[in-house]
Amino acid sequence: MSVYDEILPSLITATPAEGRELAIKIARKTIAAIQPDADIRTKLRPDYAEDTSKLMQAGQIVAIEFQTIAAANNYWRK
Amino acid sequence: MSVYDEILPSLITATPAEGRELAIKIARKTIAAIQPDADIRTKLRPDYAEDTSKLMQAGQIVAIEFQTIAAANNYWRK
Amino acid sequence: MSVYDEILPSLITATPAEGRELAIKIARKTIAAIQPDADIRTKLRPDYAEDTSKLMQAGQIVAIEFQTIAAANNYWRK
Amino acid sequence: MSVYDEILPSLITATPAEGRELAIKIARKTIAAIQPDADIRTKLRPDYAEDTSKLMQAGQIVAIEFQTIAAANNYWRK
Amino acid sequence: MSVYDEILPSLITATPAEGRELAIKIARKTIAAIQPDADIRTKLRPDYAEDTSKLMQAGQIVAIEFQTIAAANNYWRK
Amino acid sequence: MSVYDEILPSLITATPAEGRELAIKIARKTIAAIQPDADIRTKLRPDYAEDTSKLMQAGQIVAIEFQTIAAANNYWRK
Repeated sequence: MSVYDEILPSLITATPAEGRELAIKIARKTIAAIQPDADIRTKLRPDYAEDTSKLMQAGQIVAIEFQTIAAANNYWRK
Repeated sequence: MSVYDEILPSLITATPAEGRELAIKIARKTIAAIQPDADIRTKLRPDYAEDTSKLMQAGQIVAIEFQTIAAANNYWRK
Repeated sequence: MSVYDEILPSLITATPAEGRELAIKIARKTIAAIQPDADIRTKLRPDYAEDTSKLMQAGQIVAIEFQTIAAANNYWRK
Repeated sequence: MSVYDEILPSLITATPAEGRELAIKIARKTIAAIQPDADIRTKLRPDYAEDTSKLMQAGQIVAIEFQTIAAANNYWRK
Repeated sequence: MSVYDEILPSLITATPAEGRELAIKIARKTIAAIQPDADIRTKLRPDYAEDTSKLMQAGQIVAIEFQTIAAANNYWRK
Repeated sequence: MSVYDEILPSLITATPAEGRELAIKIARKTIAAIQPDADIRTKLRPDYAEDTSKLMQAGQIVAIEFQTIAAANNYWRK
């Protein structure tokens, strides 16, 4: 059993937009896996959501996760 | 339904230049997805647009997104 | 003999969720390989688990490791 | 129409050296797309060109852009 | 002749674990190539081994090097 | 004509070790292309060679450049 079982049954999504949502979801889940204490995460959240540099760090993680998901889906080419 | 549906129906673009524009668009959309409060984003914007280091962070995200889009388009090889 | 022998017999996993767990595991092992002193690592741990920017750095490493593992598993395509 | 139309008609270049120049050019263009005010860019320029850490950030962006361009050109293998 | 000749005769390793060790070895060697003065490196070492953020930077380099080595070995698929 | 013509006639090298040297060379050349003033570069050099965090940034750029070169050479598989 893994904490990812529920959100990550597969890397395959119907559309690029859904792939993007999945990228954000697994990025968030990883932060939760590294810092399992929900109270600390809640305390930290405003810190990154209102700090440009940290928002950018988050954006970069999503970009990397999306690379993986897009490749998995053969870029949703028709 | 996803916030990306409108801007990201597909990773396929007609030209590299359009691929580049899409890279910037999805990078921006991700920041909006992480920080949904438009007022806070507006407040943060000058912070990164006038700070070299943060501009560079933005530039790096765009470079990574473009890698994905370029691969999706087989690099627009003729 | 390598410190990785036990945790990394293979990059192949049954599911994406297990691949994700492996990504976290090898990322952690690398930190241990670079800083072998367990006492120092224990002392450092709260430092990154309660600091948004460092949590993000950790999240990025996991994203990169997962790219490798996902490719190894042909993205668990059925 | 895109601001990239002129500099990025194609990712294909005759040589690796030209590919490298293109990587630098599109990296610069992205900064201009994010911060369109030329006066602010001019003011920021010494800031990164004389700061090692920011120079490194720029170097990393160019490395990532070059990855894309090199793949597009099949690495200029003869 | 190259400083890498001894440690990097090939990217091929017998196992993922050995590939991981190689990733750490070439990452270290690069630092030595950039800063050839062993005394300065020795002085700098505690600085990164006891600083979470720098440990993370090191972990990220290893992750990138491992991507290359894993691809070279076709991910050690059987 | 490009400043890279001399050092980058090709991404193909005889050995992984030479590929590694090339990665360092093109990374350095990029810094020179971004900051063409040799006096400023000389002044900046101790700054990164004696600062762990900047050394790491340099190491990461080399890792990314090497990914490209290794792929170009089909990982020097025999």
